[in-house]
Amino acid sequence: MRYCPQCGHAVNMIIPADDNRVRAVCPHCEHIDYDNPRLITGTIPMYQGKLLLCRRNIEPRLGYWTLPAGFMENQETTSEGALRETLEESGSQAICRQAFSMISIPHINQIHLFYLADLLKDDFHATSESSEVALFELSDIPWDELAFSSVTRTLELFIEDHKTGHYSFHEDTLIINTLSE
Amino acid sequence: MRYCPQCGHAVNMIIPADDNRVRAVCPHCEHIDYDNPRLITGTIPMYQGKLLLCRRNIEPRLGYWTLPAGFMENQETTSEGALRETLEESGSQAICRQAFSMISIPHINQIHLFYLADLLKDDFHATSESSEVALFELSDIPWDELAFSSVTRTLELFIEDHKTGHYSFHEDTLIINTLSE
Repeated sequence: MRYCPQCGHAVNMIIPADDNRVRAVCPHCEHIDYDNPRLITGTIPMYQGKLLLCRRNIEPRLGYWTLPAGFMENQETTSEGALRETLEESGSQAICRQAFSMISIPHINQIHLFYLADLLKDDFHATSESSEVALFELSDIPWDELAFSSVTRTLELFIEDHKTGHYSFHEDTLIINTLSE
Repeated sequence: MRYCPQCGHAVNMIIPADDNRVRAVCPHCEHIDYDNPRLITGTIPMYQGKLLLCRRNIEPRLGYWTLPAGFMENQETTSEGALRETLEESGSQAICRQAFSMISIPHINQIHLFYLADLLKDDFHATSESSEVALFELSDIPWDELAFSSVTRTLELFIEDHKTGHYSFHEDTLIINTLSE
């Protein structure tokens, strides 16, 4: 941020009074801008024992498979966001069963939250965001072609719980070595 | 938002191409600003069967009791944010046991996430944010003087689980009737 969103004046990057972090502070109108982590919400959509995945039609990771997920929007709940993203990316309507995984990714200021979900019917299609949408047997998940490490971790946890039939809520942190990626 | 944070030009509130929501879009540099919900993280800090609460020294809800919690910051995990807020508001060091409650509050674009936590020792004090910090027996929680409905809901769920000795992860939505509040 270089300019104040309230008055358009150039901001200073300083630590405000009664704070301990550098913020964008406007010397003209005194507006302080807080930049906070963003929540990505999505689903693990199941239909008759099969898993729905979407092949990304957009960057990043164009062409790789992902669980439907995206940035949570204002005025919605976490599960509403997850179901909206599922509809937008796969054309399918689903219901959330429970929150399943919450993965902090601090170096990119994101939290990825996935719900166990059931598709209401066998009805999905390619969208502007997904070149292909398909159901996979759990034994056929394309592990080497998954788009994001949070998706891989979530599906690993899902497969572990699926073996026991008992699904917990899981929390994890992804620390990515930015020197090697 | 009235001015572009990247170039300082006045923005237009329009629906960008390939989108379905109104965003602040800069006609000069084409920057699109996305405003997303914010995550508040905090703890339910326990010490030898007692609950730590903080009396707010700042608005909103000055003088009311709360669980330590605040806006998650960039470059931290959800549990790191919860423990940082606990330290800042109560002067106490704690460890997180598990995520306990996640409460969507869509009309204010917030998600409140609370962890079960254990204080490492009987060491806490008033801070700039808390005029008083104290341990309460669970039978003495000041229900009528709690600061926020997400705190009340979280403590209700906590008391229910405490009776059984089995703590789950809980999800809820607070719909506040803004006509009456």
